[in-house]
Amino acid sequence: MVRQKRGGLLKSTTQRNMKQLKEYLSDVEYTFAQANFSTQPPSLYDPIDYSMHIGGKRLRPTLLLIANDMFEGNTDKAMPAAIGIELFHNFTLLHDDLMDCSPLRRGQPTVYRKWGNNTAILSGDTMFALAWQHMLQVQSPNLMQALQCFNQTAIEVCEGQQYDMDFEQRADVSIDQYLMMTHKKTAALLVGALKIGALLAQAPADDIAHLETFGHHFGLAFQLQDDLLDAYGDTPQFGKATGQDIIDCKKTYLPLRSLELATGADMRNTLLKLMDKQHPLSAQQRVQQTMQIYNSLDIASHTRHAIAHHFDQAAKALQHINLPETHKEPLHQLLLTLHDRKK
Amino acid sequence: MVRQKRGGLLKSTTQRNMKQLKEYLSDVEYTFAQANFSTQPPSLYDPIDYSMHIGGKRLRPTLLLIANDMFEGNTDKAMPAAIGIELFHNFTLLHDDLMDCSPLRRGQPTVYRKWGNNTAILSGDTMFALAWQHMLQVQSPNLMQALQCFNQTAIEVCEGQQYDMDFEQRADVSIDQYLMMTHKKTAALLVGALKIGALLAQAPADDIAHLETFGHHFGLAFQLQDDLLDAYGDTPQFGKATGQDIIDCKKTYLPLRSLELATGADMRNTLLKLMDKQHPLSAQQRVQQTMQIYNSLDIASHTRHAIAHHFDQAAKALQHINLPETHKEPLHQLLLTLHDRKK
Repeated sequence: MVRQKRGGLLKSTTQRNMKQLKEYLSDVEYTFAQANFSTQPPSLYDPIDYSMHIGGKRLRPTLLLIANDMFEGNTDKAMPAAIGIELFHNFTLLHDDLMDCSPLRRGQPTVYRKWGNNTAILSGDTMFALAWQHMLQVQSPNLMQALQCFNQTAIEVCEGQQYDMDFEQRADVSIDQYLMMTHKKTAALLVGALKIGALLAQAPADDIAHLETFGHHFGLAFQLQDDLLDAYGDTPQFGKATGQDIIDCKKTYLPLRSLELATGADMRNTLLKLMDKQHPLSAQQRVQQTMQIYNSLDIASHTRHAIAHHFDQAAKALQHINLPETHKEPLHQLLLTLHDRKK
Repeated sequence: MVRQKRGGLLKSTTQRNMKQLKEYLSDVEYTFAQANFSTQPPSLYDPIDYSMHIGGKRLRPTLLLIANDMFEGNTDKAMPAAIGIELFHNFTLLHDDLMDCSPLRRGQPTVYRKWGNNTAILSGDTMFALAWQHMLQVQSPNLMQALQCFNQTAIEVCEGQQYDMDFEQRADVSIDQYLMMTHKKTAALLVGALKIGALLAQAPADDIAHLETFGHHFGLAFQLQDDLLDAYGDTPQFGKATGQDIIDCKKTYLPLRSLELATGADMRNTLLKLMDKQHPLSAQQRVQQTMQIYNSLDIASHTRHAIAHHFDQAAKALQHINLPETHKEPLHQLLLTLHDRKK
């Protein structure tokens, strides 16, 4: 098959059929179902194996393989990087769950709840090292660039988690700061997965830049959806009770945009008090009063508008990638699937 | 200068003068004194900068540079790896201090005591990523081998810490198991530092193997000295109160060797009870009774004998390295310095 050349001088005559999104997902699922991370000592590795087998969307390895395949990389050769990026993601979850005191992850007890704090710390550290072990197995002339990208991404993710914790203690977070934090905490790893996949396929630099833009907006849209679902999700479909962000005083898009939209100082002050952990109201009352303000401002529409904006920007970035449209189909499918998600 | 060739066909006519051990140490000190790890957000990076500037022996970066210089590497080019290995070491200290609830490190409050548990976890994670960032800056044809070595070392160190924690809960630890744990927890990183330095200088594989043996025995000797000093150190020189390992029921070389040497089941049972955290005696009484047994068995001599054995093995490994003796001088100096250490 002839790859479409830069500048459009030579078009490929036959369009290559990419796999369907669900096929990439099932390839990744199969790989993780086969993978065994248990070895000596079990006290260190069993929690890693547990964490890698309790499910999850496998979004990051899937993005990595799709980006690799789009540019006609060898996805078998890219698979260790896909495993590595999921190991890294799960390492951050182990530590985040401990830092955030989250009892459940994917409906199962979190590692620190099941094995204790020290296990969550040390098994997490080991997962970070195992992520590198897999990354280093990749054979590619662009491996050094991919490793640099992986490392830069890891640093951004750590910074994102720190900003998230810092913002919980602050009343004056702007929407721009929130989006910066969300980029680092959530979007950066999606960007990293896409870039690594493309780098390993030796994709052109300008196409990698478009993928980066795609991943950035895709990540922001994804997080804003999470913020919206927390307040307005259909509980049985969303899988967890709504209002948890309000109870935790999380400064998500909804309260921050509400502060901007608030009509008058009274509403603004009421909101600020509701977002303060020292507020004397019960959790239920706090959720109720906050939701009243959200409804009066029609915050759901404003948030949906922002989500649509980021999905549009992601789709535009995809258009700019210099590949046949069929090569972009799985990422289009992903955008559509996530656009309509209810959980 | 002509490097001594393999097989002795061509000897170097002029002996190269290596720097003195203290010169390598002061090069490393100078580099760390200049280094600034503080950036945005300060809540994440200030604890990293603090941890990198409260001192320490800087043993690992020094070993890396010496090994590099022995084989006539470019130590300026190896410096990022030396910084990386110290970042990695300090990352493990941040997490170990939290896991072991240690209030002080180098006479200063530990990071988790100063900034809280979450900071110790996340700043530690970031230091691990920064260690990689520095490693990836190195320019060398052998960089991939050095990165593989670094990663394998990191995994061993995590396993060592886990075995150490596991052994605290077990009564049946053998000396072989203790030495295996000590190799992973302490010696592996010294070995890693030496190997990375030598790899970056493109040292021959058999010389790297001798360095590995040197680092292994050097690390074990170092740890057994620590074990001995905890019971028999001169407190003002040692810098901390003796007997802490006994109070913490740490299964170090001293109690494990005492169990082997114990004359009769009674002494053995008394020792096992003294090593049990549930023992009803006060800390002071426990130290006193344990020291009585140690003295009656002359455990200090037995431990000194084991230390001397490992120093001898390290010195022998150094002899086997196919380099002019002057090139090995700094490592000889290091052995001598540590042989006589009182703290």
